[in-house]
Amino acid sequence: MAKTRWLTAPEQRAWRAYLEATTLLFDALDRQLQRDSGMPHAYYEILVRLSEADSRSMRMSELADVTRSSRSRLSHAVARLEERGWLKRIDCQTDKRGQIATLTDAGFAALEEAAPGHVETVRQFLIDRLTPEQVAQLEQIGSIVVAGLETPECEKARAADRARQPVEAVPDITPATASA
Amino acid sequence: MAKTRWLTAPEQRAWRAYLEATTLLFDALDRQLQRDSGMPHAYYEILVRLSEADSRSMRMSELADVTRSSRSRLSHAVARLEERGWLKRIDCQTDKRGQIATLTDAGFAALEEAAPGHVETVRQFLIDRLTPEQVAQLEQIGSIVVAGLETPECEKARAADRARQPVEAVPDITPATASA
Repeated sequence: MAKTRWLTAPEQRAWRAYLEATTLLFDALDRQLQRDSGMPHAYYEILVRLSEADSRSMRMSELADVTRSSRSRLSHAVARLEERGWLKRIDCQTDKRGQIATLTDAGFAALEEAAPGHVETVRQFLIDRLTPEQVAQLEQIGSIVVAGLETPECEKARAADRARQPVEAVPDITPATASA
Repeated sequence: MAKTRWLTAPEQRAWRAYLEATTLLFDALDRQLQRDSGMPHAYYEILVRLSEADSRSMRMSELADVTRSSRSRLSHAVARLEERGWLKRIDCQTDKRGQIATLTDAGFAALEEAAPGHVETVRQFLIDRLTPEQVAQLEQIGSIVVAGLETPECEKARAADRARQPVEAVPDITPATASA
């Protein structure tokens, strides 16, 4: 086996800073959305993606792709969003395997209500702290990483992984953090 | 209420690229560690932190802080790591409330075995794709974000949040992705 190329000191500092920033930031985003809108960030993302789609509708498989969720995790989230009346699922007419998720008017209203507080949080803890140059750098770094992970091999690994995750593995985080 | 300052187009692009890159990257890191070492990235981080501590030991509360975990999530992870014989918990002599987690020799060996593959993955999908300038930019951006989230107010919110999360909310993702 080839010799391990350990991270150099600057690389290690960058990796640790990124890791820590990301953990703290997503924690803060979840906390704000739970507190003010009763949903975790993952649910917010589902509502956003549906709101941007034609007829505010997407196939579940497509929704799993764009939100990078496992099928089971998405099914669980979608079921909870459906319970709240924020979306509904209907069987796909042209594809027996597929189901289509549609954002309801109530779901769109919930998203509209949640959006300002969420955007303010993204500004407060990320965007407004950076210079325009750093915002551009972040876009560039992010795009490079995305491109490297959107290869056919990676897509295949993700697809296999998604198919494999059982429903039991999905946490039910909403009531725990929203109601206590 | 003040008018919402929506993200500008460049800010939106940066935020989306960062969000997507992060989701894909942590997905890939988890997948590699599960496949090759039978542990999710969160467990790896716990082993790393213990390996770097004096006597390879930390109080549970301290470990929760540095890994940015909720107490319950950490307790769950630590219990599973203990089952594998990778760490042990002992009651703290000087603090009745505290428990101390210690990395065992077997845990250190597991970490040593997992590290090369993990570092290679961090290189493959992040570090090696960036120029040295971009690595420096990432460190700077990450450090700015961390500094903004390490304020006393944020610490207080996190502490309250940690205390609130019940054990039931913690997913058991290890067997699902490792054994299927």
